[in-house]
Amino acid sequence: MQADFQFQTLCQQLDCVLDGDIKIGGSYTPVIADGHVLYVSGQVPRVGDEVRVTGRVGSEVALDQAQLAAKICVLRALAFLQRQLGSLEHIQQILRLTVYVQCADNFTQHSEVADAASDVLTQVLGQAGLHSRTSVGVYQLPKNASVELDVIAAAKH
Amino acid sequence: MQADFQFQTLCQQLDCVLDGDIKIGGSYTPVIADGHVLYVSGQVPRVGDEVRVTGRVGSEVALDQAQLAAKICVLRALAFLQRQLGSLEHIQQILRLTVYVQCADNFTQHSEVADAASDVLTQVLGQAGLHSRTSVGVYQLPKNASVELDVIAAAKH
Amino acid sequence: MQADFQFQTLCQQLDCVLDGDIKIGGSYTPVIADGHVLYVSGQVPRVGDEVRVTGRVGSEVALDQAQLAAKICVLRALAFLQRQLGSLEHIQQILRLTVYVQCADNFTQHSEVADAASDVLTQVLGQAGLHSRTSVGVYQLPKNASVELDVIAAAKH
Repeated sequence: MQADFQFQTLCQQLDCVLDGDIKIGGSYTPVIADGHVLYVSGQVPRVGDEVRVTGRVGSEVALDQAQLAAKICVLRALAFLQRQLGSLEHIQQILRLTVYVQCADNFTQHSEVADAASDVLTQVLGQAGLHSRTSVGVYQLPKNASVELDVIAAAKH
Repeated sequence: MQADFQFQTLCQQLDCVLDGDIKIGGSYTPVIADGHVLYVSGQVPRVGDEVRVTGRVGSEVALDQAQLAAKICVLRALAFLQRQLGSLEHIQQILRLTVYVQCADNFTQHSEVADAASDVLTQVLGQAGLHSRTSVGVYQLPKNASVELDVIAAAKH
Repeated sequence: MQADFQFQTLCQQLDCVLDGDIKIGGSYTPVIADGHVLYVSGQVPRVGDEVRVTGRVGSEVALDQAQLAAKICVLRALAFLQRQLGSLEHIQQILRLTVYVQCADNFTQHSEVADAASDVLTQVLGQAGLHSRTSVGVYQLPKNASVELDVIAAAKH
């Protein structure tokens, strides 16, 4: 349960309690499985009722805050995977991470924001956390969130 | 054929005739299959030759019009799935819905726009219509469309 | 090795040397496989150390330059697939192409930009290059790149 322990430690470090019922908005589901392939819905940096980091990265929001946002988003994605699979040890591989950054019109450090999420994945999951990735800068995100990301993962089968 | 009937009813309610040859632009294909997994190309709210809802949501375009756009987009995606599979009854599960909203720079109701598409999926397909989802606000969409969305679905196998 | 030859020819025509170590930024991997399904990370039009086409399409960057950018991006994606599989002949089908265009706020020719990438895929791979596609206009891309795209592909199995 090394992965679950690492996950719990990171959540505590970021004061990010994701136990119990994690809220999502809208009429969809946080994770859907097609055999061993798991599609995790887009996550904003919400903890409880609060979206922790809002505003435009590169003007209203500094890089380190955007990185914090990316970490919370990916911890949420992991929380849903943990709930679905029982343990994060059952993840075979993270397949795809797509990172959307709500940014200023001259912002170019999307990779640095996304790296914060990528690093959490490998910290928690080791080699299973290595993934393909796309990061782009978008105009606006739900709830004025600074970052949103989604994940496709494979479970051991 | 409950799903196909529901689909037809919704198309009629929205005056959205998607029979016969549905136009797409560009040198690609509307649906591609990898075994039972179907990837549906990005859909704008085009009916025949006309993109029904254009402009920026939150300034030029009101929420209810954006929701109408989302419904037409998802009906188009279903039309392509129906043509591919013979019947919508052959859908096992909608796996992923990604919704792009061409929005104003202070717009935050992306989830409410995307809900309109999500609701169509569960209305037509029941439990098979439940899906993971990501919605983001983008700067511009093809043909000045207000909404674009794409779908990944699993067929019964 | 028809596909590999076509690929090499196009790379030479565009003065686009993608042999050896292709640079990517960030802590992720260019391709990850789940069985026969290959997820290729988002590609910007980088050749060696240089991002060849930067700026906003429709204002700073003309359509033909954006199309050049799209071609380089997709050649990079093919280069990674070739490295992963040994030969492009082992591709069964391109499943999904997602094209992000960093564009001006009145730009609507995303499909024309994306077509340049789609055409490369069918030129190199024939019927195996046919794919589903989504193209959107985003606010900013990493490194101020004019175009970014990612790919999901199926290998023969």
